[in-house]
Amino acid sequence: MPTLTHGGDWAGFAAEYGTMPLDFSANISPLGLPEGVRRAIAEAAAAQDRYPDPLCRDLCAAIGQSRGLPGDWVLCGNGAADLIWRLALAQKPRRALITAPTFAEYAAALESVGCEVEQVQLCPEQDFSLQEEFLDRIRPGIDLVLLCEPNNPTGRTTRPELLQRILEACSDNGALLVLDECFNEFLDDPAAHTLEGKLESHPNLLILKAFTKWYAMAGVRLGYALCRDTHLLGRMRAAGQPWAVSGLAQAAGLAALGEEEYSRQLHALIAAQRPRMVAGLAALGCRVIPGQANYLLFYHDHPDLVPALRKKGVLLRDCSNYPGLGPGWYRCAVRSAEENQAFLQAVKEVL
Amino acid sequence: MPTLTHGGDWAGFAAEYGTMPLDFSANISPLGLPEGVRRAIAEAAAAQDRYPDPLCRDLCAAIGQSRGLPGDWVLCGNGAADLIWRLALAQKPRRALITAPTFAEYAAALESVGCEVEQVQLCPEQDFSLQEEFLDRIRPGIDLVLLCEPNNPTGRTTRPELLQRILEACSDNGALLVLDECFNEFLDDPAAHTLEGKLESHPNLLILKAFTKWYAMAGVRLGYALCRDTHLLGRMRAAGQPWAVSGLAQAAGLAALGEEEYSRQLHALIAAQRPRMVAGLAALGCRVIPGQANYLLFYHDHPDLVPALRKKGVLLRDCSNYPGLGPGWYRCAVRSAEENQAFLQAVKEVL
Repeated sequence: MPTLTHGGDWAGFAAEYGTMPLDFSANISPLGLPEGVRRAIAEAAAAQDRYPDPLCRDLCAAIGQSRGLPGDWVLCGNGAADLIWRLALAQKPRRALITAPTFAEYAAALESVGCEVEQVQLCPEQDFSLQEEFLDRIRPGIDLVLLCEPNNPTGRTTRPELLQRILEACSDNGALLVLDECFNEFLDDPAAHTLEGKLESHPNLLILKAFTKWYAMAGVRLGYALCRDTHLLGRMRAAGQPWAVSGLAQAAGLAALGEEEYSRQLHALIAAQRPRMVAGLAALGCRVIPGQANYLLFYHDHPDLVPALRKKGVLLRDCSNYPGLGPGWYRCAVRSAEENQAFLQAVKEVL
Repeated sequence: MPTLTHGGDWAGFAAEYGTMPLDFSANISPLGLPEGVRRAIAEAAAAQDRYPDPLCRDLCAAIGQSRGLPGDWVLCGNGAADLIWRLALAQKPRRALITAPTFAEYAAALESVGCEVEQVQLCPEQDFSLQEEFLDRIRPGIDLVLLCEPNNPTGRTTRPELLQRILEACSDNGALLVLDECFNEFLDDPAAHTLEGKLESHPNLLILKAFTKWYAMAGVRLGYALCRDTHLLGRMRAAGQPWAVSGLAQAAGLAALGEEEYSRQLHALIAAQRPRMVAGLAALGCRVIPGQANYLLFYHDHPDLVPALRKKGVLLRDCSNYPGLGPGWYRCAVRSAEENQAFLQAVKEVL
């Protein structure tokens, strides 16, 4: 059986126990698939005898419109992860800068094309927030800088002022700055932490976004890249099969863009539940990193927290395999009040 | 607007004309999505807030069972095209052998990782069938041989006896033989033209299969690789994101495997309609290559056949951009009796 390095392995649990777990190991909207999206998928099913539109014309136009950007600055992918791999293959950077810890697919994709990946260590003493010293690492020879904002698994954002200086340093040194903003919408103030407003002035900025997490569409697979450099997007489009985005995902994405009430509810829910989870974990003796998204990184020296919770039907993300972390670090989702209570109760029983 | 190199661009037609075309440019079952598959997608939609099982455990087991092979010899992909790109990235062959003409994604994927691709020219004088001379091209230094059986766009199969000698030559020279059998089921005698029976004795044989064409699931995206070399499959799994196969595709695939009556009807339909299309095109003065699948390659020196048909609402695949072909070569699908009549009538009016 191959090793799984990410969370969300409900299927492994279901195969073993015959039931579904309470999954706190994946960072997905607890509100479930919006009803309009579910209906769109069901209605689109019969028309899937056609190849999907390889250019995702309608969806790119709708995304562009929703964000106030030209539709040809949008490239859709089979989840944002698809676009990370396409970017690596299209650019074949020789040397790239990422943080440690961060999402494991960055290094995997970059190293698959022979890229030297420098991982800048983030420190628990600074709650894993990015420091000014990062600027010194951006220098000639660095082709690509890839940051996750908020970072996964820490949930931390970089100060907007520092992020802008990082962007300028990338411009000055001929580097492409890739910002993975897949969890941006889960922040209390998403607008304060996006560089979308810099796309027009900075063709060396590429932003990744996902439908996966916010609209609970993880099984549908849909993400997109925003970039003014349409030649780069064209190379990414050519760095993989033409039909990566299924017709079902295109229909689902179009429907999701209209789910404004869902978005309002979700934003309120996460903003309300995050501090309660922080307090609940802290009360149980965990050291909680003050994450700002829909998941929390925490530390506890209990040696068997993940398997003990699993026996209780609860999945937690063991973060010991992240470069820059180690045994005792865990990531949990922030979900509904009821689920969070059940999760905290299970943790309490184990500790 | 980026150039589209494949057929099936109904979306471009719809954007221009506001209606759907009669699409003879894509090679898909004319029976549409099986009802059981449509229902499976609709029923699975609500559960897509979960990440898809990255290992496709249930689907791999079911495919293995349906083919009498171990489940761990199966690797699922986001369409067979996804697996072609993963194979290229996982193997990074230095030199590969393919035919001309053949499916364009092979060269695109191989060249993306710096592979030298040798294209062995197939001749119209021999109806584009593979000749014994191909064996001489398999030599030390060739890491990979990739053949499409039946070939796309020619619809031609290689004599089984020659195909087996090609497999042995690959074994003798340390080459991986990749057989793309995505259209195998459309042949009158699929069993006579598959090398599945050689998988056990030849770990250097990898076979690609698709749900896309047979079950009219092109918009859903699902294909798979069969290989005894599970380490190779593991490297392919690692050569891209873990969640390439959507939860919807996994549900659809499981349902499709039970569609036996659909398969019987489809097989009978194609076997009956193919000779009628050959005769119909020949009667209109086309030179028809005797294809054996659900599509036909033909030649006519009319200079504007594709745009003229498009104005009539009919899409035809212009094959002039295939290496090894040129202006005047076209590929059409074999569809239902009624659609084929409409197609032939439109061609007649243009010629």
